[in-house]
Amino acid sequence: MIVAGSARAHDLGIAANIAVLDAAAHLKAFARMDGAMLGSIDLSIGKARTSALFQISSEAVWDYCKPGAPAHNLEASNGGLMPFPGGLPVAAADGTIIGAIGVSGGAPSQDLDIAEAAVAALIG
Amino acid sequence: MIVAGSARAHDLGIAANIAVLDAAAHLKAFARMDGAMLGSIDLSIGKARTSALFQISSEAVWDYCKPGAPAHNLEASNGGLMPFPGGLPVAAADGTIIGAIGVSGGAPSQDLDIAEAAVAALIG
Amino acid sequence: MIVAGSARAHDLGIAANIAVLDAAAHLKAFARMDGAMLGSIDLSIGKARTSALFQISSEAVWDYCKPGAPAHNLEASNGGLMPFPGGLPVAAADGTIIGAIGVSGGAPSQDLDIAEAAVAALIG
Amino acid sequence: MIVAGSARAHDLGIAANIAVLDAAAHLKAFARMDGAMLGSIDLSIGKARTSALFQISSEAVWDYCKPGAPAHNLEASNGGLMPFPGGLPVAAADGTIIGAIGVSGGAPSQDLDIAEAAVAALIG
Repeated sequence: MIVAGSARAHDLGIAANIAVLDAAAHLKAFARMDGAMLGSIDLSIGKARTSALFQISSEAVWDYCKPGAPAHNLEASNGGLMPFPGGLPVAAADGTIIGAIGVSGGAPSQDLDIAEAAVAALIG
Repeated sequence: MIVAGSARAHDLGIAANIAVLDAAAHLKAFARMDGAMLGSIDLSIGKARTSALFQISSEAVWDYCKPGAPAHNLEASNGGLMPFPGGLPVAAADGTIIGAIGVSGGAPSQDLDIAEAAVAALIG
Repeated sequence: MIVAGSARAHDLGIAANIAVLDAAAHLKAFARMDGAMLGSIDLSIGKARTSALFQISSEAVWDYCKPGAPAHNLEASNGGLMPFPGGLPVAAADGTIIGAIGVSGGAPSQDLDIAEAAVAALIG
Repeated sequence: MIVAGSARAHDLGIAANIAVLDAAAHLKAFARMDGAMLGSIDLSIGKARTSALFQISSEAVWDYCKPGAPAHNLEASNGGLMPFPGGLPVAAADGTIIGAIGVSGGAPSQDLDIAEAAVAALIG
């Protein structure tokens, strides 16, 4: 997943941080491409953790806590969630969530693009 | 309370986390039903803590900090409040607050429903 | 497990905190018996977490970091380990670790006794 | 480095966590081999961080804080050092420290063996 994500990031001209967590939100693998911002290390892990904890994309978590939604300040739970694009759950062929990936380094939409490429590579 | 709350959650088809705190906001009992989201462990404790600290429902705390209300950023106090439905204070027969319950796992309205069932069982 | 542990604690005249975690160290169940010390809430969870993270008893972790052992200051890792008696891994019938239990409230030897009773009840 | 370290760990029959940090102690790459203990994730990063911060092996840091040495409690600095075998600084061909590696999962001597194999592969 990290190889595929890095390849996609390279194509986009982005220096990305890519974090892969297991289904219980423990770190499984991580890579920081040369030139990626230091502040994005924590963002990549945080997006993946947000996805793993709630088993949805990191940005979908925002639907629960954005203005007008019922779960005010949800983003402050669990030590601080990162509810914006770039984190995706990772499922096995049978649909079971087996972990999550988080990408940070580019614009949120680019981060999501890279995460999707990584997930697609796993599914193959 | 946890047995009653779990029974209600089961009826609703929800895998819930249920946390019970004492009046000083220290953990008294907790149960995570099989399949409940990991991210909701902290939410259930957070809602109960929010209720215990202010002796009102977790969602009522939002009335003090929502846009237009005077207590700007109150939700960032106490390590992060969870001011949305699912947390309720627990009172003795004489009205004294003896603790709080917090539920997370379903939609906020469902979480509140489960918390109410748990409180009702205590009052019996 | 919590019922069996509480029964054993009652027999010993101990007001115990009992925490059960899953194999990834996330809280699954918790109970504080009436009169148990507040400071022991975190100890019970910490002992269980220590066992879950290293898949051995909490006190066995001390063998790695005690004076003369090679892993100096290991106890400061993972946000602070609790490497003393009262935490045990919990295994399924086939030997797979499925979680951990942590007990605190009495003397360490009593806490271990209670944890053993809880594990025995599960296997039973 | 992670590929070489993982290969050495595989030869030793160890499921290791391997962390690579840059010279400023920020995470550069990480891998957890299947079956590696969850508690060792933090240990691998901690050993690498210990090496990166002081530009010596993690175990050499112990020489400064061990009983009788002058730097009492040095191990509590920097959020908690891990001053035991398994962390090594990584130098460029000209001797400049460019980062550090930390390994955890086996006995400390095995972790050091794996770290040395990873460093050797870089120099190779």
